Amino acid sequence: MTRNDTPPATTAEAVAILGGTGNLGYGLALRLGRAGYSVLIGSRSEDRAREAADRASTAVPEAHITGASNEEAAGAAARLVVVAVPFVSQVATLRSVSPALREGQVVLDATVPLGPAVGGRPTQLVGVWSGSAAQQARSAVPEHVGVVSGLHTLSAATLEDLDETVDQDTLICGDSAADKQVVQEVLGRIEGLRVVDAGRLEMSRMVEGLTPLLIGINIRNKTHAGIRVVGL
Amino acid sequence: MTRNDTPPATTAEAVAILGGTGNLGYGLALRLGRAGYSVLIGSRSEDRAREAADRASTAVPEAHITGASNEEAAGAAARLVVVAVPFVSQVATLRSVSPALREGQVVLDATVPLGPAVGGRPTQLVGVWSGSAAQQARSAVPEHVGVVSGLHTLSAATLEDLDETVDQDTLICGDSAADKQVVQEVLGRIEGLRVVDAGRLEMSRMVEGLTPLLIGINIRNKTHAGIRVVGL
Repeated sequence: MTRNDTPPATTAEAVAILGGTGNLGYGLALRLGRAGYSVLIGSRSEDRAREAADRASTAVPEAHITGASNEEAAGAAARLVVVAVPFVSQVATLRSVSPALREGQVVLDATVPLGPAVGGRPTQLVGVWSGSAAQQARSAVPEHVGVVSGLHTLSAATLEDLDETVDQDTLICGDSAADKQVVQEVLGRIEGLRVVDAGRLEMSRMVEGLTPLLIGINIRNKTHAGIRVVGL
Repeated sequence: MTRNDTPPATTAEAVAILGGTGNLGYGLALRLGRAGYSVLIGSRSEDRAREAADRASTAVPEAHITGASNEEAAGAAARLVVVAVPFVSQVATLRSVSPALREGQVVLDATVPLGPAVGGRPTQLVGVWSGSAAQQARSAVPEHVGVVSGLHTLSAATLEDLDETVDQDTLICGDSAADKQVVQEVLGRIEGLRVVDAGRLEMSRMVEGLTPLLIGINIRNKTHAGIRVVGL
């Protein structure tokens, strides 16, 4: 084995966001770019990824934000790879990037199995055979890559409005404390956002349920609500 | 029909708490007693109900708290009837009190289908055929009686510690706005507690999931956590 066969180590300074042209992914790109991360916006369409990266760079001029295909973004050795695609695209996206993922990377899955995936309402959850979107992500990603779920209760609108402090919690689930630590470090750099450990990956069954709940509350109150765990 | 056949109207000044000898029910009795409600603690055992009422009256001397069987408590015309029994006793309790319940009363179901009901862990949920404990309660109560679910995220320890302000939200679910208003009025009298409408009764599937989540967070952080919806 020559030195060239050794994969480069992952880098904690970069974050890849698959589906970074969508609302949540784009808002996250803005926040992480502002926090000093080098952000790779991934998309099925490289053109749309570049367009989103240009837009994000205009919104946060000091940030380093570039666009690429999802595969390229996943393979760029960013320690953290966020998956912010619609639930129906989750498995296809993860399978397509899996060959590019390497040991030491952590996938942060933000997908929620909302009703519209099967013609239902956004205040409904679809039952996922493996228990949750997070557990489904786990089964679609190579074993040597970590999987954590999170970001379920953060609204894209709140993230995109850079004049607003986030001022809420995000609950994360995962089976490895080290992988959760990676997520904690990155998301913890977003001003006002607190990361709360919600336990093992299977707990994501309950955390994912917060999204349809908040969507209902948002509709009734015409707002973009989030949650805080009090008494911590 | 003579005048004597007319059931007495319900009274908004009284609250019945079935399973009021349990931790959650007892803590709620203290808080509602202090808020000025006449509280009826119900239990399968009249003796234990009386003992708990005595204890509560000592803790909150200004309160009017009495003990009775669950059936007597439910039949005493309190507008609100809280069900704070373990999940395994929920249906049996509701069936036993159903003949005593009357039109105008609202059942506030606080039960959560936690794992221990079937030998599992308190950080796990049991799947309920009808979708949630709340929907199961609906099917066990006469149609002319309202059903709302709530109180899932309030810890007994927080309620019992009268020196502590509650400072959290409770999410309620129900199919009738008027029934939810009854609950809102009563629980809203507890200092620091905000009642947030989480939608129809079926949304309780997701709200009940908050309990095992918080139990996990409590275990990891040795605390009694609750939740707040921010951005409302």
